[in-house]
Order: sequence, then C-alpha cells, then structure tokens
Amino acid sequence: MPGAGQGAAARPQRPESPEEPLAREDLLLAAAYVSDAQYNRNVPFETSPQAIRLYYFYNHWTMQAITYFFICIDLSLALFEEPALFPLPFLLTLIDLIIYGSLETVNIHSVRWSRALRPVFLINFPESRQIRRAFRSIRNTLPDILYVFLLFMFSVLIFSLMALKLFGDRGLKTVEGSPYFTNILEIAFELYVLVTTANSPDVMMPAYDFNWWYSLYFITYIIINTYIFMSVFLAVVYNNYRKHLKNEIRKLAYLKRHKMTEAFNILKVKMDTEFVVKEAPWRQLVKVVAPDISSSHLELLLRICDEGQKGYMDKTNFLRLADLLNIQVVTINVKTHPLETWLPRVYQSAASLLIQKMVRHRIFVWVYDVIILINAIFIALDEKNPLISYAEWLFLSLYIVEILLKLYTYEPRAYFGRKQFWNWFDTLIIMAALVAMVANATIQSARKYNSQQILDIVLILRILRLLRVIVSIQRFRVIVTTLINIGPTMLTFGGLVLVVYYVFAIIGMEVFHGKVLFFDPNFTAPGALVCGNPALEDSIFAQSRYCRNNFNDLASSFIVLVELTVVNHFTLLANGFALVTHQVAKLYFIGFHIVVVILIVNIFIAFILEAFFVAYSLEKSEVETAIEKKIQELGVGVQEEEVQDGKLIDNVDTKDCGFSGDDGDNKRKSLKGLYFRIASKKYRTVDALLQRMFESEIAPEDEGPSLDEILNFSPSDIYPKNPNFENSA
Amino acid sequence: MPGAGQGAAARPQRPESPEEPLAREDLLLAAAYVSDAQYNRNVPFETSPQAIRLYYFYNHWTMQAITYFFICIDLSLALFEEPALFPLPFLLTLIDLIIYGSLETVNIHSVRWSRALRPVFLINFPESRQIRRAFRSIRNTLPDILYVFLLFMFSVLIFSLMALKLFGDRGLKTVEGSPYFTNILEIAFELYVLVTTANSPDVMMPAYDFNWWYSLYFITYIIINTYIFMSVFLAVVYNNYRKHLKNEIRKLAYLKRHKMTEAFNILKVKMDTEFVVKEAPWRQLVKVVAPDISSSHLELLLRICDEGQKGYMDKTNFLRLADLLNIQVVTINVKTHPLETWLPRVYQSAASLLIQKMVRHRIFVWVYDVIILINAIFIALDEKNPLISYAEWLFLSLYIVEILLKLYTYEPRAYFGRKQFWNWFDTLIIMAALVAMVANATIQSARKYNSQQILDIVLILRILRLLRVIVSIQRFRVIVTTLINIGPTMLTFGGLVLVVYYVFAIIGMEVFHGKVLFFDPNFTAPGALVCGNPALEDSIFAQSRYCRNNFNDLASSFIVLVELTVVNHFTLLANGFALVTHQVAKLYFIGFHIVVVILIVNIFIAFILEAFFVAYSLEKSEVETAIEKKIQELGVGVQEEEVQDGKLIDNVDTKDCGFSGDDGDNKRKSLKGLYFRIASKKYRTVDALLQRMFESEIAPEDEGPSLDEILNFSPSDIYPKNPNFENSA
Repeated sequence: MPGAGQGAAARPQRPESPEEPLAREDLLLAAAYVSDAQYNRNVPFETSPQAIRLYYFYNHWTMQAITYFFICIDLSLALFEEPALFPLPFLLTLIDLIIYGSLETVNIHSVRWSRALRPVFLINFPESRQIRRAFRSIRNTLPDILYVFLLFMFSVLIFSLMALKLFGDRGLKTVEGSPYFTNILEIAFELYVLVTTANSPDVMMPAYDFNWWYSLYFITYIIINTYIFMSVFLAVVYNNYRKHLKNEIRKLAYLKRHKMTEAFNILKVKMDTEFVVKEAPWRQLVKVVAPDISSSHLELLLRICDEGQKGYMDKTNFLRLADLLNIQVVTINVKTHPLETWLPRVYQSAASLLIQKMVRHRIFVWVYDVIILINAIFIALDEKNPLISYAEWLFLSLYIVEILLKLYTYEPRAYFGRKQFWNWFDTLIIMAALVAMVANATIQSARKYNSQQILDIVLILRILRLLRVIVSIQRFRVIVTTLINIGPTMLTFGGLVLVVYYVFAIIGMEVFHGKVLFFDPNFTAPGALVCGNPALEDSIFAQSRYCRNNFNDLASSFIVLVELTVVNHFTLLANGFALVTHQVAKLYFIGFHIVVVILIVNIFIAFILEAFFVAYSLEKSEVETAIEKKIQELGVGVQEEEVQDGKLIDNVDTKDCGFSGDDGDNKRKSLKGLYFRIASKKYRTVDALLQRMFESEIAPEDEGPSLDEILNFSPSDIYPKNPNFENSA
Repeated sequence: MPGAGQGAAARPQRPESPEEPLAREDLLLAAAYVSDAQYNRNVPFETSPQAIRLYYFYNHWTMQAITYFFICIDLSLALFEEPALFPLPFLLTLIDLIIYGSLETVNIHSVRWSRALRPVFLINFPESRQIRRAFRSIRNTLPDILYVFLLFMFSVLIFSLMALKLFGDRGLKTVEGSPYFTNILEIAFELYVLVTTANSPDVMMPAYDFNWWYSLYFITYIIINTYIFMSVFLAVVYNNYRKHLKNEIRKLAYLKRHKMTEAFNILKVKMDTEFVVKEAPWRQLVKVVAPDISSSHLELLLRICDEGQKGYMDKTNFLRLADLLNIQVVTINVKTHPLETWLPRVYQSAASLLIQKMVRHRIFVWVYDVIILINAIFIALDEKNPLISYAEWLFLSLYIVEILLKLYTYEPRAYFGRKQFWNWFDTLIIMAALVAMVANATIQSARKYNSQQILDIVLILRILRLLRVIVSIQRFRVIVTTLINIGPTMLTFGGLVLVVYYVFAIIGMEVFHGKVLFFDPNFTAPGALVCGNPALEDSIFAQSRYCRNNFNDLASSFIVLVELTVVNHFTLLANGFALVTHQVAKLYFIGFHIVVVILIVNIFIAFILEAFFVAYSLEKSEVETAIEKKIQELGVGVQEEEVQDGKLIDNVDTKDCGFSGDDGDNKRKSLKGLYFRIASKKYRTVDALLQRMFESEIAPEDEGPSLDEILNFSPSDIYPKNPNFENSA
C-alpha cells in the first residue's frame, strides 16, 4: 500500500465537526479516498471506502448526541453523590460505593480525587476546539505570566513589609475591633485582596482616619498593583492568545494545502505540459466524499472548478475543492407564496395587495415599535389592576396578528429561513407566551390559584418581547449581530469555565461541606443566625446573611464560585470560610482568583476584543475568496451580507427580477429557477475569517513547508522580522 | 514675502517640546528660516530670524516652569477656597470675593461653575500631547460608545423590569430590612451598580435565599452586562484609541515630510541633472536651527548626510535632517578613571586591580543580593530589639561600601550617566536613608524622641532598597524596563485623571460639602458615630466608619473619587451621600462611573496594552532607521540596547578596545576618542517607535498628500482596503 494511504489511515484521530469551515476532514477523506482509488485503480467507485463510512458514522448527529449524553451523566454524577442536591437511592450508587467503600473499610480515608478530574472528558473530545485552544492558551501563557506574577507578588510583599512597619505599631483597630495590620501574612492577604478591589476602601480606613497622608500609600498600591499589573496580565494573556490563534490558523491552512496537494498528486494525469485532474474521477471523488450532494450542487461546483468546460481542471482549481465543499450552499427555490398558488384570485385581489403593501411598509414596523413601548409601560405598571391584565391579552393578540400578517405577505419557508434569527425569536417568544398564558388561565379558573412557575415564565417572555425594538434600529443591530455572531464561541467558553468551576467545586465540597448551613429565613432554628456554626458568631459573614453561600452541594458551590469570579466581597466570603475551617483555606480562594480571574476572565476579554477587532477591520473592507467571486460571477449566488434579517424576503424578490433578464448560457440556464445562497458572512466565525485572510496571502503554487514542519510550527516565529505599521498598533 | 514665509509665520502656534522625537518644531524652524533666507538671499546668516528666537524663548525651561507654576496656582486655589484645607485670610481672597460677593448681594446665588472649568488650562497647553490625545480619544469615541451604552442601558432596563415583576410582590427584605426590589428606579440603580460588581452578591441574596432558581437571573445579568458589555466597551475604546493614534502618527509623519520638502525646495540648487543642497547653506541652516550644537556633532551630521563627501547632498539625505537633529546624541568621552589619572601607580597596583576585578565579577552582585534578602528578613523582624536596630546600621554601611567600590571601579561620569536609572535609584535611596537615619539619631539623642515623619521615611527607604533584587534577574528586568519606559506617558495619564477628578471634586464639594463630618476616633463627640448627620443613623455608611470619606475639602474629595474609581463599595458610598442630600445625588456617582471607569480606565488599559504589544512585536525584530545604521557604519555609535543598565560601563570599555584597532580614515580619525551614543532604544516612546515604522514604509520620494489633505486625515481611512492576516488579529 502506498505511503499516502498509510498516512491517511494513521491520522483520522481528530476529525473536526462538519459545521466547521476549516475542512480538515474533507481533506483527510479526499486523501484517504484518493489513495484507495489509486490502489484499486480498476475497482468501480461505487463502494465508498471504509474510512469514509466510519467518518460519517462518527459525525452523525446520533453519535454526537450520545457523546454529549454520557458527558452530561459523567458530570452530573456530582449532583447525586454525597454532598448532593438530589440524593440517589443506595443501590444506584452501589458500584461506585463498592470501590470507595472497600478502600474505606481497609481504613484508607481517600478523598475521591478522580471526581475533580471528570471534566477532563469535556476537553478531550473533538468538538471543543475552542475549549482546547483556551486550555492551550493557558498552558502556553503560563511561563510568560509566571514572571509577571512573581514580580507582582514581590511588589505585594514589599508593600506588605512597608505596611507592617508603617501601621503595625500604631495600635490601630479595624471596624470589627481587631488589630490592624500587625501580622505580615494577614497583611499580604489583605493587600492581595485589594488587588481584586474587594476590600477597598475598608482596608484603608483605619490608617486614613489616623493620618491623611497614609492614604497615599494605598493609592500608590492601587495604581501599581490593581491598575498597572492587572493590565499587564491582560496584555500578556491577550498577546499569547493572539499569537497562538494565528499559529493554529496558519497550521490548519498549511495542513489543508498539504493534504489537498497530496490528493492531487494521486489523481493527476499529464495533459500537454501540465498535470490535471479529469472530470470523471473528480465527479466520483465528490460523490464519495459527499454522497448526499444534489446533482445541481455538483454541477455548480464543477462549473466553478472547470471554468472553461474543458473536461479537466488544473491544480489551482482542484485545490479549491475542500473549500467549495465546506461552503454551505443553500439552494433556494424562489417560489411564489403558497396562497398565491392555491387561491391566486384572492391573494392577488386589491384588498390583499393593499395588506401586503401595508405590511411591507416601513410604517408597519414603526407602529409595532410604538405598541411594544406602550406594552413596556403597561408592564411597569401594577398588574393587579384587571384592566392592565386584560391589556396584556390585547398586546398578545396584536403580536400574533403581526406574525400572521407577515406570514401572509412573505413566503413562509423564507420567513423561517435557517438564519432568520429574529423571526424565529419573535415567533417562539409569542407562541410560548400564548401557551403559558392559556395554561395559567386554565389553572386559575379551575383551581383559583396562580402557578408561580408559569407566571414567572410568562413575565420573562413578556419582557423579552421588548428586545424586538432593537432590531428596528440600525446601529444597535450591528452590535447585536456581532454579539450573536460570537455567541456560539462564547458558549464554548462556558465549557471552559464549567470545567474549571467543576474542579474547584469538587475540591470546595471536600473541604467546606457542611461547615455552613442554610436555614429557611422564616424558620427560626437555633443556629440560623450563625449559619449553624458557632465559629461564625459575630462574623460579618453571618451578619450579612450569607449562609446560603456554601459548598454543601454542586449547585450552591457553583453559585459561590460565580460570586468569587465577580470578585466583590471576596474577603467576606474567604474570611467566612476561613473561620469555619482554617486560615489556610484562604489559599483555595487565592488559587481560584489566580486561575479564574487572572487567567480565564482575561482570555475571555481577549477573545471578545479579538472578535470585535476582526469585525471592525472587516467593516470597511471585504476579504472575498476566489470561490465566492466565482459563484457571484456565475450569477447564481444570492449575496446575503447586504440583506438585513427580517427583510431578506424582499431582497430575494428583487434579485429574482434582476436574474430574469439574463442572456443565454447553457449551463446557467440549466441552473435557472434555483439560486445558491452562500452562508451569510455575518455568521462566520473569527477563525474562518482569519483562515481566509491567511489563505488569500499564500500563493496558489506555494505548497508550504513539509508536514513535520507544519506540525511543529511555533507561535514565536509568527511575528514578521520587520513588523509593519499596520500590525504593530 | 513669499508664501512659505507666511505659512511659517502663521503656524508657530503649536510647537512641541524639544524632548519629543516627532520633530515638528525643527521642521517649522527649517521652513521658517529657509524661507527667510530666501527672502533676504543677500543678508548674512548670522542674525537668526525672530521666529526662531521666539521659539527658543518659549521653549526655555524658565518659561515652562512659569507656565507650570501658574497652572499649579490656578488648580491649588481650591485648597484655599471655601471648603478649604487651609483657609486663606480674608484679604487675599478679596478680589475673588468681590466678584462673587457682588453677585451674592444682588441676590444671585450663583454656584461658581468657573471653578470646575479651571483644569481646562492643563489640557490646552502644548506639552500635554498625551492628555489632549486622550481627550480627543474620548471625544471621538463618544459616538461609537454611545450606541453601545444605549444598548447596555436598554438591557439594564429590561432586566429591571423583569426584576420588578419577579421579585417586587414577594415581600422580600434586604439585610437592612428595607423592601427588596419594589421600585423600578431603585432596581435600575442597583442593577447598574451590579455592573460595577460593587453590590455583588448582596443584591442577589434575598432572592437566592427565597428560591435557588432566581440566582440564574443574576448570573445571566452578570454575564451579559458585567462581562460582555464591559468587554465591548473596552473593545470600542481600544479600537478608537488605536485608530486615532495611528491617524495622528500618520499625520505627523506626513507633515514632517511636507515641511522638509518645502525647505528643500527653497534651498536647492541645480547640479547636473538633480537638485541638491550645498554644504555651506546646510551648515548655516543647522547652526541657526541648533545654535548650541558642538562642532564635532555637526561634523558627524554632515558626514551622515553627505556620505561621499561631495560637498552637497541630495533630497533624500536632506530630508533626514529633522530626524538627525532629534536624535539625542550623547557624546561620550571614553576617559580613563580620574583616580588613574591622579594616582596611576596606586590605581594600577595589584591590590587595586584585584578589587576592580572583584567588583566586576558576577559573584559581587550575588553577594549583595543575598545581603538584601537578609536585610528583608531583618526588616520583617521586630525592630524594638536593639540588636536588629544596630544591624540596620550595618546594612546601610554595606550598601555605602558597595556604591563606593563601584565608583572606584567604574568611571563616575559613566556610572551616573543620563539613563543609568538603577544607579541613580540606588545612590539616592542610600543617601536619603543615610541622611534620614542620621537626622533621626540626632533628634533622638537630643530630645529622647523619635520623629514620626522621619521614621516613616526611613522605613520606606529601607524597604525600597529591596527593589534592587529585581535588577539582577533578567526576566524581571524586561518587564520593569517596559514599565519604566511607559512611565512618563503614564504620568500624563495622571494629568488626565487629575483634570477629571478636579471637575468632579469641585462639583462634589458644591453638593456635599459639610454634610458628612469626621471626628477624631478617640474624641467622643456626640455626633461622631453618625458622622455628625442624623440622617446617617443606622446607615451602613456610618457603621462602616466611613465618616472620613467626605467632600469637605479638595484632598478628601480626591480620595473619595479614588475609592469610587476602584469601584468597590460604590453603593455604600453612593447610598451614604444620597441619604445626606437627595436620592438624585446618585446620578453624580453614576456619571462619575461612566466617565472615569468606562471611559478613562479603559483608555488607560488600552494604552498599556498597546505599549506592551509594541514592545512585544519589537522584541523579535529590529526597526532600524537609515540614520542609526549610518551612525553604526561610521563606527562612532555605541549601541546601547544590548547593554544592561548597571553594566554599561563594562561594555563601553569593551567597545573602546574594539575601536582602537580601526584602520585609517581621515574623518573617522578626527572623531576618535569621542563616541556618540544614540538615545537608548529601551527608553523610546510608543509614539516614536510607531512613527519610525510608518516612515520606513513610505518611499523616500513620496511627498505625501497636500497639506490640506494631511490636516484633514480621518482615522476611518486608516484601515487598508484589504486587511491582511498579520494586522487583523
């Protein structure tokens, strides 16, 4: 078997999801298929090779669902284990207990550390590229950040020493009456916390009360450590994030090029002076790689690759295949409205046309914006008033009428198009509100009682409707679109945070479980005011009624960790838990701060900055790949980026008219009535955009470095030897 | 008079400080001089034109000092005016009072708004380019940020409505027992404050105690508004900052090019086929523009411009003149040590050479690092112990010995070179500590009493000495150098913050003056516990002993504003002041948050990020301008970037040896014994670096757009039509 085939067989371990535009899987497949084809050059193409079948099996949605399902089970185990929200019956946890219990009986009081490692599954499966990248980012940033961190800790220690000397002997007292700044370790902790700003200005007040000038010490500290060092952390994290992002994208782009070249070399035949791929093997290749492709789609692709209809294509055109297959081409049949087909006379009557014109008119949108604003005022008013309660039904009916009118005017399948976010949003909100209100009314009339849960849902749905006003204002839409655009990636950050939270929650539950108890506020249990722990007597923790902030189950732990991420009252929480366990417990909180606030939150900020910068730099210009241009040239693409959501349908109509005047071309005629929409530019990810930018900069004949070199690309050689003005600032 | 002269006469309004490397003043001068010269072509060059004399007069340090002095007086007026730290005797404030009083008598109770406008002077004078840029940044960012802000406020309002509906009717109570989330305005305020994180998790606790699920509402709010929106604000501010920074730099670079071309056109004479400038007028030009230039320096410049010693220079070489004049060329006479001159026998004796070798050795540095660490431990120990107190004298003498040894080994003028930051730091700290300790000992023995102020100073100096350890560790030095590098610019940010604080402090003093009083903690005045204001009874403000946080004088106001900038306990402060005045007072605090935290702090972060990114992208590569290369080629430059602070002198010695082997060249010989040091790269500003990058990208023959076009450059056309991979992420 030739080397290429072996290579392909040996490297199918990391196929990326088919949604991703980076196309590695296609390249793998092409290489695998092609090498196979070469090996069995006489065998018919019908039987698709096993690797491809396995690939599709792996990528099938059911398999994905099963993977997620098991991950969920794995992670949710903590909900049922001992510090549990919902304790499980004994038998179910039997197996786990047998292992744990057998260790217990031989007197090994093991802490089940494996629990903290569970979320590792979440990182190590292929769909979570962003999570893995963030983890790699963290790992790669560590050496750089370590030195900044050491310097920062050095600075904290220097300031602690100063504080000890300046304030230690003054006999000052804090508000709680404890001695102020007498122990160097406590000072260092307080000053570390001051970096999180969580104890400002309390930590300063005793010294400030004593002498005005001492405030300068704290202001200097805050400027140096809180502002400058924290910004430097962000700079280091951001710089690393950017560097590794670029390196990865470069790697992916070169890998793609490399594999496509390999595929070409296998399929190529010599034609005159150059090597080409003939139409027949190309068609077979596409059919094997994408078995479900429609014949019109295949025709379109061929038309793009083999522009001159010569029956073969050169290397440059062949290399595009992976990208072409990755472009989500939606075939739109610009159809007439179903009502027009069924009841042409009624739909085309004067009254009907007037309604359609009305709905399409700008004033229609404005009228509904005003209605939404009036609705907002009604919501703010007291809803005990029955009149207002009835008004709510009126508003709901108005919204339903709006949707019906739109469906009457626009083609329903276009209205509920894949990317029509706001139309979907609208309809779902209204429908859900309708269902919930009807359900509530039924319950109310039957049992004279309002279901609290349903009421809450109705309320939230009612208010979410107000979001629609945003869509009408152009400037808002741009920001919201960018935010929606980066939404999916933000969700993967949720995954990253989940992993870290999970680890810290498990550790927290091991350490603090049961130390702080929460009693119902209306129930006057004896220990209620001290959270069931005498150690908390007179503590601010108990005074502030923080008893519910505990590590008794996974959910509560997560909420405490959210509070710690927000950082405010960090000391209050840390001191509270230190009181019920041991002062060393503070290390847990400092560790959490370093990992989550200094590293992860900064990576999150870096990610949002990057996404907005890419969005800004694309706002003014257009990076179009050759492929898209070709689709445009053929006149069968409906460019979507100019089209506003919710107005798409109008535009499709317009384009339709434009096309009808086309002059003849056999191929084009054969595609007529069918339009291809390129997946909207607005919804592209930062990754995809960057990859296109990079690819547009490497020459078509550039085959890139060797595979080993590609795999060993280092982020540090990303920087050009002479940085230019544009990229440096 | 020709147009060029008029132009020069009409535009001397914004000369920049001579320290700035952007060289506009030189260009202006060149143009002015040259046009003048053309006008009086027969007049001898001796009399320098009036414009240049005025320019030097304006830029003389005395004039600068006078400007700063009056600005200080202007700003410090607030210290002596009515809510005053040091009340002035009546007569001195007479004139001011007459104006104010006469208005008072005719019953116009005017608030003296002019006071809040005073700091405008600080912005409007030429040395504060960074402050003005930051202000321009703010002004230019406003439209962009406005839409984000509106969207953000919309989101806050939507969430407020939800909170009102979800929690308003539950009858929940806050910790203080007041009703929870019943008034929409209060909810909006609380939720706005939650964005600052200042009331987390307190604002959530009542709802969380009531039902676990309600915490999801707050977590959603925090993710959307605190994390995402705040990052978007940073992205918008940063993007604008970057855009305007680049635009300004482009403008400056083109202006320079434009003016130098103008100057060339006036001086040029035709030589064969090309226009050139002859040596004689060039010499005159330099002498007029820089009257104090040393003849060796002039010779060096000529040698660089007229490389072939042809007696004239072409346009490209002439255009360099402004840059050449701006390079701080320090002439170093690599001299022998003064002791060697005076006592050659002793200094060259075996013992002396051993000492010198010892001091130069790496172990010498390590020994002193260990001493410093031991010193740190001693400081941390109790200093009441007389042994430790004596040890302090020992350490001080060790440090003095170190400095003396270094001065013995290294040439003193090189040791105290302009950029030898750490040598200066060392010596000043040690000398100050010596003086303070001696002063304290004298006072102690004379009056048996320790002066508190002197002791504090001694303590701080003693601890600052520990900073020296940083210098020994390479990785730390890089970070510290970058920080020191951007230090001066950070100071100008201090100016910006000062301006905004001043305005807010004046307004705060008008509104809150005298409402909150501070009593000495040891003095049990009747109102001490409620800060002298019954309205604060039972308030957390008084309970937390925040009485000193008031607006009774300028200094206290500034400290409160610092506390508000740090954001923590924002609610506590805002609620406190709202209690003593009116709920509307909260608007003052929200306004301050928007201006300072959302705008200025973000600009500060943007600035630090930018500075570090430029530093990082330069780390790997070197942007050398032709000028520096030429100086290097001539072999008379001592490149400093490889030279570590504190080790400079060694290197100079080395270079000296290297040079002595030079083979003959008349010009070079004439310069021998004299070395030019280019102002260290490490200490260059971001501006200067960016300008060089930009200039290295415009072709020498490119004269740039017309003057009007240059002045009307807009930041929006900075972006290239096709952003490339490097600059987009």
